[in-house]
Amino acid sequence: MKVITDDKKIQELVSRGVEQVIEKNSLIKKLKSGRRLRVKHGIDPTGPKIHIGRAISLWKLRTFQELGHQVVLIIGSFTAQIGDASDKQAMRRPLTESEIKENMRTYRKQLNKILDMDKVEVRYNAEWFNKMKIKELIQMAMRFTAQQMIQRKNFKERWDQTKPIGVHELLYPLLQGYDSVAVKADVEIGGSDQLFNVLVGREIQKLYGQTPQDILTFEMLYGLDGRKMSTSWGNVINIIDPPEEQYGKIMSMKDELIIDYFRLATRLSLKEIKKIEKQLKSGKLNPKDAKSRLAFEIVKLYHGESSAKKAEKEFNRVFREKRLPSKIPLFKTSKGEMPILDLLVRAGLTQSKGEGRRIIKQNGLKINGKIYNDWKGKIKIAKKGTVIQLGKRKFLKVRLI
Amino acid sequence: MKVITDDKKIQELVSRGVEQVIEKNSLIKKLKSGRRLRVKHGIDPTGPKIHIGRAISLWKLRTFQELGHQVVLIIGSFTAQIGDASDKQAMRRPLTESEIKENMRTYRKQLNKILDMDKVEVRYNAEWFNKMKIKELIQMAMRFTAQQMIQRKNFKERWDQTKPIGVHELLYPLLQGYDSVAVKADVEIGGSDQLFNVLVGREIQKLYGQTPQDILTFEMLYGLDGRKMSTSWGNVINIIDPPEEQYGKIMSMKDELIIDYFRLATRLSLKEIKKIEKQLKSGKLNPKDAKSRLAFEIVKLYHGESSAKKAEKEFNRVFREKRLPSKIPLFKTSKGEMPILDLLVRAGLTQSKGEGRRIIKQNGLKINGKIYNDWKGKIKIAKKGTVIQLGKRKFLKVRLI
Repeated sequence: MKVITDDKKIQELVSRGVEQVIEKNSLIKKLKSGRRLRVKHGIDPTGPKIHIGRAISLWKLRTFQELGHQVVLIIGSFTAQIGDASDKQAMRRPLTESEIKENMRTYRKQLNKILDMDKVEVRYNAEWFNKMKIKELIQMAMRFTAQQMIQRKNFKERWDQTKPIGVHELLYPLLQGYDSVAVKADVEIGGSDQLFNVLVGREIQKLYGQTPQDILTFEMLYGLDGRKMSTSWGNVINIIDPPEEQYGKIMSMKDELIIDYFRLATRLSLKEIKKIEKQLKSGKLNPKDAKSRLAFEIVKLYHGESSAKKAEKEFNRVFREKRLPSKIPLFKTSKGEMPILDLLVRAGLTQSKGEGRRIIKQNGLKINGKIYNDWKGKIKIAKKGTVIQLGKRKFLKVRLI
Repeated sequence: MKVITDDKKIQELVSRGVEQVIEKNSLIKKLKSGRRLRVKHGIDPTGPKIHIGRAISLWKLRTFQELGHQVVLIIGSFTAQIGDASDKQAMRRPLTESEIKENMRTYRKQLNKILDMDKVEVRYNAEWFNKMKIKELIQMAMRFTAQQMIQRKNFKERWDQTKPIGVHELLYPLLQGYDSVAVKADVEIGGSDQLFNVLVGREIQKLYGQTPQDILTFEMLYGLDGRKMSTSWGNVINIIDPPEEQYGKIMSMKDELIIDYFRLATRLSLKEIKKIEKQLKSGKLNPKDAKSRLAFEIVKLYHGESSAKKAEKEFNRVFREKRLPSKIPLFKTSKGEMPILDLLVRAGLTQSKGEGRRIIKQNGLKINGKIYNDWKGKIKIAKKGTVIQLGKRKFLKVRLI
């Protein structure tokens, strides 16, 4: 495949969603040279799911692929094999090589939604680090001072709070830097929290006589509630979440985030996004409709256009037309009457009776469309079925056998 | 050879000149067990000469040898091969393995004055570190925090003065610690500046399932002028200095240091040293005589008793009886007259005319026993010889051919 050197495409590549380019002129020159560049990106194989914030850099890699460049994914299998005992609150046990490969298999499915994985070069860094002698590591370490290392943002904070920083943690940036040497990276794509490490990479490449890589880091995509995106806060959209879930989450998002999401999480043209922004400001477009469009675009990216259409239709049916979902899971029982808390647990709608009681007290339960607030009550189960709705999106039909 | 477990000898071993024992009970138990202990001591093969301060730990090793234990000298050949670029003021260039071995040859001659080198196990740590993979080093690094490492005294000072500390310098204590693992050390002998490193060694031994070594560190022996002993300050006695030089230096020493020198730099019994101390205090013994005894003991240690006697006799001849030394180097010339500054340089008594002028102005030159202070003057050279004395100890006879 020929390398594409179109000016406009290059300009969008180095600017859209980009927080920082080091060094911009050098990168543009490389991109215009017509040479197939080696574009490095590191993957930590320990987290299970990719969310759309994390996906920003993957989409950037996709753009590199589309321009004909070689994407190189580095799997941090070496350090994962060592584990990490430094952070006592979250002791990471060492992973075996086969565990890492298994993790990568599920990861690969997700990556496949964004990248053409057949064209990606996947490298496990244990390949070079399992063999490396300490002499080489010490020679790299010599190039940096402890003070420089501790300037790294997350170290600095821990240092100032007198929280422990493991000596090995000062070495990890060197290893990550050496990855660039091992794969002869021309460009590295990283989150802004990786800036320090990728800069170290440039120094280490010089040490080995290589031209230093250029670096792209990205703006942060905030979670649905405007806080930092984090799985533990539940404000995250994962790229393998089902279409309806993705659609519904976007519709529940804070209005201020709409344009950022268009820019960072969709591939809509910047021109079109500008238009949407104008219409939103002038009031021509209301935020709800803008979110519908956004939700559609995002579901389309990860599940295709027909799934996006279905998700949209379903959302409108339930939330605009206030009708029942088109498909409701069925729970069959032989008992004509049952305590409501028992039913919720048996049907798997709640984890415990306590959870059910709490939701019922907060008016979160509807039976056949009407709020039901007697948590001690028993309900009758009809032959044609009784519809239970828990919260906004959990539906269940209970039917007598 | 059988291991000696005599109580008194063990007590002196763990106390004379000893600053700190970690852990004393454990060490005494080991010493009494009758097992031949492996006693580790590190040698830096870059410095040329051993001075009597440095020798304190070597004499302690000698005592271990006399009790039947195995002394293991570790030559830091691995790090010497890497060099060190961290301290910009004193860039250490990497040494080749043959340079290190050559250094060790001259070192060995000096060590031989103290230790029975035939019974010493000499190990170059490149033996294990050249092979070591980075995984092992990282696993050691994990056990320590950057904060712990920086608590080390000389790091702490540099940190507080914002002077650079190389990342690799944080690794060196780990390597030194691993040396103890490699040689299965039961005890380590170190200077007090090494305390941090030898403590790290204990932790690393635990990591490898070994019983941690016990540690002996020593009191500091100050230089002749009472400052820290340092070759660059010229207040040092080297163990290969000639007998007369050693004897003369001791006689020029500050009186307050006499007892410390007896305790730390001789093998006189503690009982006898106590006696000397008492006599000094009561005025029964004057400091000059105490120093004569001390000088005699030290020269005896490094050059044998007859050399010590000769050095003593010679010193007394020149400084007490004010006679000429028994042997004066001879310089022959065919010129009957010569400018004094020319003569000093030609005969090798001064490096330059400037140096000669300075000494003459300070009344530091005697010709045939009389002060001569005309630095512009010419002197006549007699057939039977003219005796020139520069400072206290440099003599030369100039004779006409």
